[in-house]
Amino acid sequence: MDKEKYEEFDKIFHPDNVAVIGASPVSDIASLALMSTKIRDRVYFVNPKYSEIFGRKCYPSILNVPVPIDYVIFGINARFVPDVLAECIQKGVKTAHIYTSGFSETGLPEGIELEKKLKQVAKGKIRLIGPNCFGIYCPESGLAIIPESSEEKGNVGVITQSGSIAESFSYFGKTKNLRFSKVISYGNASDFDCPDFLEYLADDAQTKVIALYIEGSSNGERLKRALRYATNRKPVVAIKGGLTEHGSRVATSHTASMTGTPQIWKSLFKQCGVVQVNNQDELVNAVMAFSYLNLPKGNRVSILSNSGGFSVIQTDLCYAEGIEVPRFTDGTIEQLRKLVPLAGTIIGNPLDAWPVYYKIYEKEGNLADIIGILGSDKNIDMLVVQFDQFRYIRRARQSEAGEHTRTLIEVMLKGMEYVRDVVGKPVIACVVIDPFLEDEEDRKYNLMMKHAFERRNFPVYPTLDAGIKAISKLYKYAARSTSNRRNVA
Amino acid sequence: MDKEKYEEFDKIFHPDNVAVIGASPVSDIASLALMSTKIRDRVYFVNPKYSEIFGRKCYPSILNVPVPIDYVIFGINARFVPDVLAECIQKGVKTAHIYTSGFSETGLPEGIELEKKLKQVAKGKIRLIGPNCFGIYCPESGLAIIPESSEEKGNVGVITQSGSIAESFSYFGKTKNLRFSKVISYGNASDFDCPDFLEYLADDAQTKVIALYIEGSSNGERLKRALRYATNRKPVVAIKGGLTEHGSRVATSHTASMTGTPQIWKSLFKQCGVVQVNNQDELVNAVMAFSYLNLPKGNRVSILSNSGGFSVIQTDLCYAEGIEVPRFTDGTIEQLRKLVPLAGTIIGNPLDAWPVYYKIYEKEGNLADIIGILGSDKNIDMLVVQFDQFRYIRRARQSEAGEHTRTLIEVMLKGMEYVRDVVGKPVIACVVIDPFLEDEEDRKYNLMMKHAFERRNFPVYPTLDAGIKAISKLYKYAARSTSNRRNVA
Repeated sequence: MDKEKYEEFDKIFHPDNVAVIGASPVSDIASLALMSTKIRDRVYFVNPKYSEIFGRKCYPSILNVPVPIDYVIFGINARFVPDVLAECIQKGVKTAHIYTSGFSETGLPEGIELEKKLKQVAKGKIRLIGPNCFGIYCPESGLAIIPESSEEKGNVGVITQSGSIAESFSYFGKTKNLRFSKVISYGNASDFDCPDFLEYLADDAQTKVIALYIEGSSNGERLKRALRYATNRKPVVAIKGGLTEHGSRVATSHTASMTGTPQIWKSLFKQCGVVQVNNQDELVNAVMAFSYLNLPKGNRVSILSNSGGFSVIQTDLCYAEGIEVPRFTDGTIEQLRKLVPLAGTIIGNPLDAWPVYYKIYEKEGNLADIIGILGSDKNIDMLVVQFDQFRYIRRARQSEAGEHTRTLIEVMLKGMEYVRDVVGKPVIACVVIDPFLEDEEDRKYNLMMKHAFERRNFPVYPTLDAGIKAISKLYKYAARSTSNRRNVA
Repeated sequence: MDKEKYEEFDKIFHPDNVAVIGASPVSDIASLALMSTKIRDRVYFVNPKYSEIFGRKCYPSILNVPVPIDYVIFGINARFVPDVLAECIQKGVKTAHIYTSGFSETGLPEGIELEKKLKQVAKGKIRLIGPNCFGIYCPESGLAIIPESSEEKGNVGVITQSGSIAESFSYFGKTKNLRFSKVISYGNASDFDCPDFLEYLADDAQTKVIALYIEGSSNGERLKRALRYATNRKPVVAIKGGLTEHGSRVATSHTASMTGTPQIWKSLFKQCGVVQVNNQDELVNAVMAFSYLNLPKGNRVSILSNSGGFSVIQTDLCYAEGIEVPRFTDGTIEQLRKLVPLAGTIIGNPLDAWPVYYKIYEKEGNLADIIGILGSDKNIDMLVVQFDQFRYIRRARQSEAGEHTRTLIEVMLKGMEYVRDVVGKPVIACVVIDPFLEDEEDRKYNLMMKHAFERRNFPVYPTLDAGIKAISKLYKYAARSTSNRRNVA
């Protein structure tokens, strides 16, 4: 990408003034979103139906707005878009995000025709994002697509052909402790397309990992080059939507994409070193790992567990995901035998050792030491710490359960930070919360633990499955990078 | 199973009087659990260390208890169990649940020896459940393994070699709207083993579906017979723990099981018609489907969605799970076109139609009608209704979002009940809640919808993935039953 193009993009993500065309005091998510961030004082509303919106003057036309506008958001009926776009060109607007649907994705002749017209009007005069998309969320500048997203910036870039996936990232980012550099929903890709954004985020110093949702592409060669360009610089984790013939049928109705066969995409992703995932949860979970963790040296984990049955199932799961749960060295076993009671436990890997969640007050040989030992074994590359224990603690400690848990959190963190920062291995935590749980005390202490771990920059997963699948992607990427380096050397 | 044996089992699940040996006022989950149910007045505590527990007299020995005791729970150190068991025999106790760990599962000579001794003492004189297990939860009688479980009885039977899996079912049953006939954690299976319980639940009129977690068996032929016996009578959904060599290594440490190769188990389950699942979530989700739904006539679903991107991913997911998402008939499409706005929607299957969540006040052509149409298409065997929409409604309706959602729930239920009760097809709901969500208003209305659907006996899943995987198991079982019936005819 050349310098000029980067400058064009920088301006798109950091506009001076923004206008919403078709702004409305009701059901206008775009305006609500912009009014919720620091960009609010540089937002202008356009709609001949209103004289005022959110206590601000509303202009009948973009041509009446008294300041220069870099970036407009179209929220008007599709059939009016081309004409109003011409006014934007007259105004000197550089980029238009066409929120509106009703173009080629309808599959109807009038929609296809309308999109053709849109392109003709825009060509060489204004750049387009969309149509049929949520546009851009850039916490640094204040561009936003929903009113609830965080204003903190972060290191995750998202490029998605689906608006709901952009919305979902924006909404659940806070919940997952994910923070974003840029989130881009690009819809039908009438002008700017996936490869443009890939190249830009590949060179964007703020973006550490790129999450991608793509249904199809009009230029396979271009996409391949952009994917390679990006994956040579940072991890790209992607969902190909429409991997089955039938999903692909739905994708065509969704964004009018030429979707290609599943084989073509699988091989494209593999050739380019894209980490492929199957659904939104897997995408989010993998991106959390890439956002927070250093790459592991290998695929061998140790697991702190609190159940024999679950240890068995989890070990099976790890192997299914290409993660090893090796035996500990004799030295590690010997150390653990000194610290972990025998009855009801399994001194091995996973360490199924519920009594250790109660051994937290002892000066020597407490849970912090045990976690340190689990992470120090020479056969181990990563550590997984699991907590699904508050209700057990409550049964045992009753009114002291809360205080016990607070101490437990500090003790666990001590061990986890030792493994990450001193031993130097990636550490994840799984704090199990059932989504439908209504035991508010249980939920409260689990969330307290989650926040405490997040404050020290550990990624926290709601199930062990989610965590294991995430680090398996991390390992897969690390292994490929290592083998690439070897091939180069 | 003969009549005498059934009577023996009925008595185990419905004892007249119960004693806890090694009862304690602190950290004694067994006593806490029993004191939380209607059996509390028939529970007796035994421990020479205390004269009173929970305000009740505590006896120094089982021999001092002034009433006959059918069922005892052992919570004392493993090495004292054989001698105290002899006292129980003297007292005339029929069954002992050995909660205690520290037997053959330790892999140590003294543990193996102790279990041998236990068997010798018991043989022909008293029946054993365990050792190393949580025992029995039977809401009808009041036997319980944790203090938080529901006292309502239901149609799900659980047999598990892992205590934590029994605990997890008991704890999260309420959350999942699952109610149980009997939950059995049988641990090392020194006496009663999985086949005994399988046969009993197979003929238990209160049990509609059996959930099974098994790590291994000492008598493969016996297990096979019992599995066949059970699957000929009702669905059995099972996890084999230790499916990989490594998981199997952990299983051996867990319950001293002979675990067999994954191939042997896979083929055993297949031959016997067991529905195999891979983890606890899949087990719970499948059991919810079997507990609430009639069997579908085929594998074709229609999906009410609110996102194009997710519709694409979900369609891919369905095909990966052996579920079809067929095109609707022209008639259905024509009916839908009249009711669903065109822009931003996909009129097809899945129906991606977010505007319909707002079309609920219209007398004709509201969401109830649309759901009815989705379920009535002749190409469709099951209906999946999805809701992940409250935050969108809040953005659009703001202070009226709550009221809107209450109406929406009633409208959706009207359509869902029509499809289930009039058209006669299974219907599931997916009400999406992120486990870490802390937007309490969003959570509140999603939970409100969940409870409303549950009150009308629809199974509700927290993600579409979970729901689809569950009905794929339902279909798999239905298809096998149909083909069995054909083979017989």
